[in-house]
Amino acid sequence: MAEAARDNLQPNRPLLCKQAGGNRTLDFSVAAVLPAGGSGERMGSATPKQFCQLLQRPLISITLERFERVHWIKEIVVVVSKQNFELMSSIIEHYGHSRAIVVEGALTRHQSIFNGLKAFVVNQSPSSWLEKPEVVIIHDAVRPFVEEDILFRVATAAKEYGAAGAIRPLVSTVVATNAEGYLDHSLERAKYRASEMPQAFTFDIIYRAYQQCTDYDFEYGTECLHLTLKYCGTSAKLIDGPPDLWKVTYKRDLYAAESLIKESLSKSVCIFTGMQKEAVQLGCLLQEALQLMMEVDVLTWSLNKESQCIQAISSGLYYNFIYININNFDLPLEIVQLMELIENAKLSALYPVVVTVVHLNNLETASSCIRMEDFTNIKELAKEAHQKNVLLYRLLINYTQVCEAAQ
Amino acid sequence: MAEAARDNLQPNRPLLCKQAGGNRTLDFSVAAVLPAGGSGERMGSATPKQFCQLLQRPLISITLERFERVHWIKEIVVVVSKQNFELMSSIIEHYGHSRAIVVEGALTRHQSIFNGLKAFVVNQSPSSWLEKPEVVIIHDAVRPFVEEDILFRVATAAKEYGAAGAIRPLVSTVVATNAEGYLDHSLERAKYRASEMPQAFTFDIIYRAYQQCTDYDFEYGTECLHLTLKYCGTSAKLIDGPPDLWKVTYKRDLYAAESLIKESLSKSVCIFTGMQKEAVQLGCLLQEALQLMMEVDVLTWSLNKESQCIQAISSGLYYNFIYININNFDLPLEIVQLMELIENAKLSALYPVVVTVVHLNNLETASSCIRMEDFTNIKELAKEAHQKNVLLYRLLINYTQVCEAAQ
Repeated sequence: MAEAARDNLQPNRPLLCKQAGGNRTLDFSVAAVLPAGGSGERMGSATPKQFCQLLQRPLISITLERFERVHWIKEIVVVVSKQNFELMSSIIEHYGHSRAIVVEGALTRHQSIFNGLKAFVVNQSPSSWLEKPEVVIIHDAVRPFVEEDILFRVATAAKEYGAAGAIRPLVSTVVATNAEGYLDHSLERAKYRASEMPQAFTFDIIYRAYQQCTDYDFEYGTECLHLTLKYCGTSAKLIDGPPDLWKVTYKRDLYAAESLIKESLSKSVCIFTGMQKEAVQLGCLLQEALQLMMEVDVLTWSLNKESQCIQAISSGLYYNFIYININNFDLPLEIVQLMELIENAKLSALYPVVVTVVHLNNLETASSCIRMEDFTNIKELAKEAHQKNVLLYRLLINYTQVCEAAQ
Repeated sequence: MAEAARDNLQPNRPLLCKQAGGNRTLDFSVAAVLPAGGSGERMGSATPKQFCQLLQRPLISITLERFERVHWIKEIVVVVSKQNFELMSSIIEHYGHSRAIVVEGALTRHQSIFNGLKAFVVNQSPSSWLEKPEVVIIHDAVRPFVEEDILFRVATAAKEYGAAGAIRPLVSTVVATNAEGYLDHSLERAKYRASEMPQAFTFDIIYRAYQQCTDYDFEYGTECLHLTLKYCGTSAKLIDGPPDLWKVTYKRDLYAAESLIKESLSKSVCIFTGMQKEAVQLGCLLQEALQLMMEVDVLTWSLNKESQCIQAISSGLYYNFIYININNFDLPLEIVQLMELIENAKLSALYPVVVTVVHLNNLETASSCIRMEDFTNIKELAKEAHQKNVLLYRLLINYTQVCEAAQ
C-alpha cells in the first residue's frame, strides 16, 4: 500500500486550477469597474452594504479578491463616494489589493460608472497610469460570489459582440400595474430574464454611450445594456449566469454571504507529509476518509523551486492545512516553514487559517510515550500564530502498530 | 425609585399585540391553502426545501406557526405530494399544528392548489369537516416570514375586490431576449413589480377560475392572479408587501432564514419579579440596560386569571425569561410554575427556551453567604428541562447594599 499511496501524492486533477482560473488567457486587454457608491438604505444599517463586515472583513474586499484571482483582468477601478474615499483606500492598503485603485464617484450610479471609465482615458485624467483596455467589465461591488467562468464568458462575448451581460431566470412573476394599483397584466415568464451583473463592453462602445447620455439617463437610466443599445445600436449578447451572482441587498443577504464563506473555507484541505512510510500512509487514509466531505490534496513536503507545496499555500485555495509528522516533537523545521509561507501568502489577513500538526509516535521505535505537555515550543508558536489569525492545533497519536487493513 | 419602578411594571404599549396580531377581527371567514409540493431542485439537495431543517425544525412548520399566530385564519390546508403525505402528517402531529390539515397534491402547482381548494367543497370531499370560507389566502410554504399585517391586508382587499396579491419592487432590471439570445429591450422598472405571496381571493372567484382552467393553464400558468383575471375578469388589487416575503429558493436562503430566526429569538425577553423591593429594582435596572438591544417587558409574578404572566408565556413572543428571586434558594415554587407554563405552552417544542433565575442574596438579612453548590434542587430541574429543550441557568448575586446610583 505504501507504494500505491506514494503514487497518489500526485493529484490527478490539475492542482489549483479549480477556482483560481489558472491557465485561461485572452488576446485582448481587460479591466474592470466596480461601482461602490451605494448608501445601503435597504439594509436598514448606517454602514453602506459594500463596507459591511463579513468575518471581520469588508464585503468590497471579498469582491476584489475574486477579481484579483483572475490574472487576465489587469486593473480594477473601484468607484466610491467622496466621503468613503479614504476608507476605500485604507481597505485596499490593508488587504493588499495590488491591482485595485479608487476613483471618486458622483451622485448617480451611471455618473459614477462613467467616472470610473474616465480614469482609463488619458486626456480626462492626465495623472492616471492606467491604460485604456479593449474590454471593460462592470460589476457590482455587492455581488461578491462572482467566478472566473462568468467573467470570462461576458468578456469574450463583449469582444465579439460589443456588449454582453449575465442573465438569470425570473424568480417571481413580473406584473404590470395600472394607475389605480390593480393588476393590468402578468408577463409570460419564459420570455423575460432578470438582468444581473457582470456586464462587459468594448471600451469604446460603452464610453461613447455615456458621452451621449442625457441628464435623464444619468438619473433614471436602468442599466448599461440599455444605454449601449440606445446610443450605439449595440444589442448585447445575454449569457446565462450561475445563481451565485445575487446581490447583497438586505440584512438576510449578509447572513447568507457569511454562511457561504464559512462553508467555502471548510471545503478543502491540504495535507502535507514527510517521506516516511507511516506519514504517507496516514495521509492517504485521511484523504480517503475526508474526500466525501471536502476536497483533499496530499503533498509530500518539499520547498524546491517547482514545489507544489509552495503553490498550494500561495494559491489561496486552502485555509485548512494538516502536517503529518513522525517521531519529532521538538519543533519540526517544516512547521516553522509552513507558518512562514502562510504569513507570506497573506492568507490569514483574509480569513482565519487552521493548521493541524499530527504527531505520530511509534512506541516500538521511539524511546518513550510522549505526552502533550512536552510540546512547549509549539505552544509558543501557536500563541504567536493566534495573533496573526492562524489557529495552530496539535494532535498526538501514540501507537504500537500501523493499521494495515487497506492492504 | 422603587415607586417609579413599580409603575413601570405595567408596560405602556399593549402587551403581546406586536407580532401575535392580537385583537384584529374580520367579519368574514378566512382559511388558507399552502402548496408545499415542490421538489427543491434549485436547492441542490435531496430534501424538498419545505422539509429542510432550520434549528432542527422543518421549514413548513415555521410557516404554519406564523399562520397559527393569526387567530382569524380558521383552517390551513397544506398540499403535499403523495410521497410526503405521511411526513407532513407527522410534522403536524409533532409540532401541534392544530389548525392544519394535509391534502394530497397533484403533478403541477396549480392542480395542487385546486386540490387544496376542493377540500373546502362538500360535494368534492364528503368526509371533510372543513367549511367553505368566504376568503382564501394562498401562500407558499417556503416563505416563512409572513406577518399578520400583510395577511390582513390581502384578505380584506380580496373581500372588497375579489382578488389581491402582495407585490415588491423589482430587484433586477427585467430584459426581453430575442430568439438568438440578444437583448431585445429592457423594461422600465418603475412600471413593473415582482408578484409575491400571499395572495387572497374570495373563494368562489378562485374556485370558478380553476374550474375553467385548461390543461395548458394547469401546466404552464404563471399564477393565480392571472387566472382570475382571465376567467373571471377580476383585476386583483396589488399591495406593497414587506421585504420579508422572500422565497427560500437556494441553499443561501436557508442560511439566511436560520440566522434571521436566531436573531428574532434573541430580540425580546420577559422579566418576572416578586413583589419585594429589591427584585423590582433589579428588574427595572435590567430593563434599562437591555432595552437598547432588545424588547424587554417586566411583570410582577402572579397566576390569577387575568395574569399577564400567563399571557406572556403562552403568546409565543418570548423565548427568553428571567426570574428574579430574593433570599430563596431551595426551589422557589414560582420557578416550578414557570417551567410548567412553558411546557404547557409548547414553546420549547418549537425553539430552545432560555430561562435565567437570578438569586439575590442580601447578606445583611440572610443568614449566610450562599454558594452555587447549594442549589441541588434546581440542578435536578435543569437536567429535566434540558431534555425538553429548555435551558435553565442560575445567577447568584450575594450583596450587602443595593446600588442606588439611578435614584
